Amino acid sequence: MNTFGNILRLTTWGESHGAAVGGVIDGFPSRVKVDFEAVEGMLMRRAPGHGQPGSTARREPDEVQWLSGLTPQGLTLGTPIAFMISNTDTRPQDYEHLEHAYRPGHADLAYQQRYGIRDPRGGGRASARETACRVVAGALCLQVLHEQHIRIQARVTRLGDHKDDFEAVVKEARRQGDTLGGRISCTITGCPPGIGEPLYDKLSARLAYAMMSIPAARAFRLGEPPLVLGSQYTDQWDAVGERTNHTRGILGGITTGQDINFEVDFRPIASMGRPVTGLTEEGRPIQLPARGRHDVTAVFRALPVVEAMAALTLLDHLLIRH
Amino acid sequence: MNTFGNILRLTTWGESHGAAVGGVIDGFPSRVKVDFEAVEGMLMRRAPGHGQPGSTARREPDEVQWLSGLTPQGLTLGTPIAFMISNTDTRPQDYEHLEHAYRPGHADLAYQQRYGIRDPRGGGRASARETACRVVAGALCLQVLHEQHIRIQARVTRLGDHKDDFEAVVKEARRQGDTLGGRISCTITGCPPGIGEPLYDKLSARLAYAMMSIPAARAFRLGEPPLVLGSQYTDQWDAVGERTNHTRGILGGITTGQDINFEVDFRPIASMGRPVTGLTEEGRPIQLPARGRHDVTAVFRALPVVEAMAALTLLDHLLIRH
Amino acid sequence: MNTFGNILRLTTWGESHGAAVGGVIDGFPSRVKVDFEAVEGMLMRRAPGHGQPGSTARREPDEVQWLSGLTPQGLTLGTPIAFMISNTDTRPQDYEHLEHAYRPGHADLAYQQRYGIRDPRGGGRASARETACRVVAGALCLQVLHEQHIRIQARVTRLGDHKDDFEAVVKEARRQGDTLGGRISCTITGCPPGIGEPLYDKLSARLAYAMMSIPAARAFRLGEPPLVLGSQYTDQWDAVGERTNHTRGILGGITTGQDINFEVDFRPIASMGRPVTGLTEEGRPIQLPARGRHDVTAVFRALPVVEAMAALTLLDHLLIRH
Amino acid sequence: MNTFGNILRLTTWGESHGAAVGGVIDGFPSRVKVDFEAVEGMLMRRAPGHGQPGSTARREPDEVQWLSGLTPQGLTLGTPIAFMISNTDTRPQDYEHLEHAYRPGHADLAYQQRYGIRDPRGGGRASARETACRVVAGALCLQVLHEQHIRIQARVTRLGDHKDDFEAVVKEARRQGDTLGGRISCTITGCPPGIGEPLYDKLSARLAYAMMSIPAARAFRLGEPPLVLGSQYTDQWDAVGERTNHTRGILGGITTGQDINFEVDFRPIASMGRPVTGLTEEGRPIQLPARGRHDVTAVFRALPVVEAMAALTLLDHLLIRH
Repeated sequence: MNTFGNILRLTTWGESHGAAVGGVIDGFPSRVKVDFEAVEGMLMRRAPGHGQPGSTARREPDEVQWLSGLTPQGLTLGTPIAFMISNTDTRPQDYEHLEHAYRPGHADLAYQQRYGIRDPRGGGRASARETACRVVAGALCLQVLHEQHIRIQARVTRLGDHKDDFEAVVKEARRQGDTLGGRISCTITGCPPGIGEPLYDKLSARLAYAMMSIPAARAFRLGEPPLVLGSQYTDQWDAVGERTNHTRGILGGITTGQDINFEVDFRPIASMGRPVTGLTEEGRPIQLPARGRHDVTAVFRALPVVEAMAALTLLDHLLIRH
Repeated sequence: MNTFGNILRLTTWGESHGAAVGGVIDGFPSRVKVDFEAVEGMLMRRAPGHGQPGSTARREPDEVQWLSGLTPQGLTLGTPIAFMISNTDTRPQDYEHLEHAYRPGHADLAYQQRYGIRDPRGGGRASARETACRVVAGALCLQVLHEQHIRIQARVTRLGDHKDDFEAVVKEARRQGDTLGGRISCTITGCPPGIGEPLYDKLSARLAYAMMSIPAARAFRLGEPPLVLGSQYTDQWDAVGERTNHTRGILGGITTGQDINFEVDFRPIASMGRPVTGLTEEGRPIQLPARGRHDVTAVFRALPVVEAMAALTLLDHLLIRH
Repeated sequence: MNTFGNILRLTTWGESHGAAVGGVIDGFPSRVKVDFEAVEGMLMRRAPGHGQPGSTARREPDEVQWLSGLTPQGLTLGTPIAFMISNTDTRPQDYEHLEHAYRPGHADLAYQQRYGIRDPRGGGRASARETACRVVAGALCLQVLHEQHIRIQARVTRLGDHKDDFEAVVKEARRQGDTLGGRISCTITGCPPGIGEPLYDKLSARLAYAMMSIPAARAFRLGEPPLVLGSQYTDQWDAVGERTNHTRGILGGITTGQDINFEVDFRPIASMGRPVTGLTEEGRPIQLPARGRHDVTAVFRALPVVEAMAALTLLDHLLIRH
Repeated sequence: MNTFGNILRLTTWGESHGAAVGGVIDGFPSRVKVDFEAVEGMLMRRAPGHGQPGSTARREPDEVQWLSGLTPQGLTLGTPIAFMISNTDTRPQDYEHLEHAYRPGHADLAYQQRYGIRDPRGGGRASARETACRVVAGALCLQVLHEQHIRIQARVTRLGDHKDDFEAVVKEARRQGDTLGGRISCTITGCPPGIGEPLYDKLSARLAYAMMSIPAARAFRLGEPPLVLGSQYTDQWDAVGERTNHTRGILGGITTGQDINFEVDFRPIASMGRPVTGLTEEGRPIQLPARGRHDVTAVFRALPVVEAMAALTLLDHLLIRH
């Protein structure tokens, strides 16, 4: 349940304000020379405020400790690769007022109902902090994919209902103490044909599963908007055997060899710069203060997470194929 | 890969024009009295042309043979429930011209590239015929859910870019030999809070996976459109402890106890009443004749499939919970 | 739970006295030409009384119906291979006296306690009849292994505490209305080195799991009896780089390329030619009559089952390896 | 592959001479108060030399760091419990002579053939050091089992071919620089009836799998030696509804409610106090020096590992049952 993948498996652990978060990557190919700088670079793109116009990012170094599965020279052994990232920025006192209150738009109450207990500090396990582990694992997968000339690239295409001038949009939302939902478009190039399982483990279904497992993801779409006519959407061949690509690279769950493209929509962040109404343990509404520092939107930080989950999904399928 | 679910598992088999299609349901609770009429009724809703305005449905009886897992009185034993549906309507000669050609918009070429071989008759394993097995299994799950007062109801909300008057829309498309994409909205009521796993097996992620595994599904969305402001979207409590439900019943991957709603978009059917351009095995384009009988849209027939996959997903999660 | 294997998966279904027993093989390589005679031959070796000195076997044809996954020419498609064997020899009236009684040495009461219900006819799902499905699947796997020059051969090495003259031993037990436990020794030759997973999915652990899942299996041993000195058991190299093979082909869970050998012990059959004491549903002891026709020992019929489970295990591991 | 269990899952990582070994326990019940002293006590029983008559144990503190899944008060949250044990006693220089040589009776060459690379320091991932992680996880499971009045107790019943006076046997083997195989008998009391899955996931099959995954385990037997007559082995009921228990608590893969007993045989340790012949990377035999400090037998240290694996297996099955 805290494991993603079939042949290539990532298991993650850690509460946002515990000692650390970390992961174990099992089934990773042996004799790959890890590019630690590439991992670091990808993690940096996930740091709070990163890529967010006008943001004054708070510091969160995210230094990865590699615990197993590598030779001293950084070659993978084929055994589980364990890593962890210590939590340096934990201020439990920031969350004391939440010990007996559930925040709106967060999973606080859901966890309580699921487990009968929860870590009230910063969302505990439900925090987006866990995505740092996905990025570390995804960065390793991307190395293997790059060697096979497969590239994955995500970008923000919507912020609220805006298609451009994001800097001004963010500034205005911040001024109002509000937050914004957004859309990420992700393209995979260089993927060979014939990848994917036909029924339940369609590559499209696995990508949807991977993307919808990212915190705040609410919608997934593969290819062009499908609410059209068959004569517009069906990809036919032309005189030289080329095909259009309205469906974007996956047919019947299996890659066609054409470029893959999908979109993921994220809801606005629930922690805002304005007071919100939560619930006490006794079931009474309670006013919770405005959050001091906060991101206006999750989508910029989510870019490397989307790429990482796509990489984990794709490499898993490539390794399954026999 | 041809198995869906963790604790409750459906494995399906069968090519569309082979002897039969069928499935094995493992992990189903014991001592449930199977309502065979309910199964039949749900299957009927999946029959070609069903619910499709103006359709002259071809006959496909879909009689279920129950092979194991039941007492003579129809009580489940807790052992695997195997069933099959014989293919009575197989006309291999209809497909002879496709033995050496790949149809556009179908998985013909993808299967060839995945397996190096394929069944050219009617899409083989990729055919929507497999969904009959999902409906049988889903109907059984719905029985268990109904006993717990959980209801699942899907309906068509879009046909092409139309929101209503579907009869006229279908008629016009049929007249033009064209097909139509559409949207299904599905609501789950009565689901208790605390169902779902927090990380990768979020109920939302599993529902997305389940829906995107349905043939022709291209998009999934949980809840209201999220490209808005946080102050509009975040579900806060009111004075009497009630919450709004913009996110529609799932937070952090776990049910809140409120109504769940999600939407699934389907692309137009690729088999049309007009000629299309496919590809020969030698890589040359080839004109393929218009399909004689065909559905204008898959969405009406997909309604029980969406409900079935939602039921399989939800009951699996209910059984996991301890 | 009714599925065996990771990449190559067999799911079986069916009660011994229901309509049929059957299975679904998923993940099997495509483009293999099925040798139906080899399947039949292996099934014949599992037939009641087979190989059992002096046995008057009752007739059980075990005709396999192939339902999916094959072209009309018998080539595998890479899609699930479903098959079933109809139960022709079901005499429910033979079991009427068992509807309210639990037999000793059988799983009758255990099933009742596990599921709160059971099929009283001939052991239902617990019957050894299910092993016919394992043999069908195993026969297919053996074909693939043979192409890679891997051979699997099982033979009986003990009957009760006897090492030979089994014919006389069987005759004497039958005369006394008694049954006999026995030992099977199985050798795998031609297996390449480097197969197996190091930790929990050691090839040795998976073989033990596979063998102990066969009805009546009670013990598993890999290699020579290990209750000796290290200087006797440790396989060292000689002057020309050859190694002894006391551990029999698996070290640290991974094949060495040497011959693999393991043993499986089976307990005596509980149905005997003499009356036994069972239990009524009300918890009172009840005398049950001697079984009319019965095998004296399961080990001869278990030979193809042992080979089949070894083949399923090994091919699964070969397909996992990347 | 480095994960054990279905509902309750342990994933372990770490090379014997890397920075640390560790594990992640997923699916563990929430709101259990962890008894850290019990964990420590069980780990102590696994320490080198422990319980080994006449041993001068080298120091290996095995201090557990708890990384996630617990409240500051030591209550489980229901989220993954991650822990690690730093390797304090790593002397890479001890293994320099093994960088280009494969030891006999170890998995050195097997890993090389499996992965094309290996960690030459002390067996790397194949080292018995990994079992410390199993003991930590098992100790947690035992807490939950104890609350349900289930007890698991292992003891050594054979050392070489000796049944008693183990102290003298060990002393003599050490004098000769030799090592010894041995047998462990494990009893589970208080287990309710109806636990286990009937087919492939029989409790007996899962126990065999669990035990055979322990380093150096070579044989598994459930219940009394089965090479006897059916009239001796079949457990019948007596006048007051009591049953004999020759099969030891598991019938048809499902618990009967009676005491469970199984035995595990371990081969002698390959590292001896005398020179052995290994192989160079070039395929030439090479004399390797006697190991300075070494255990004479693994069985005493394996006792808590056997108990831990039994606890993991049993709790997994208890949580599966619905």
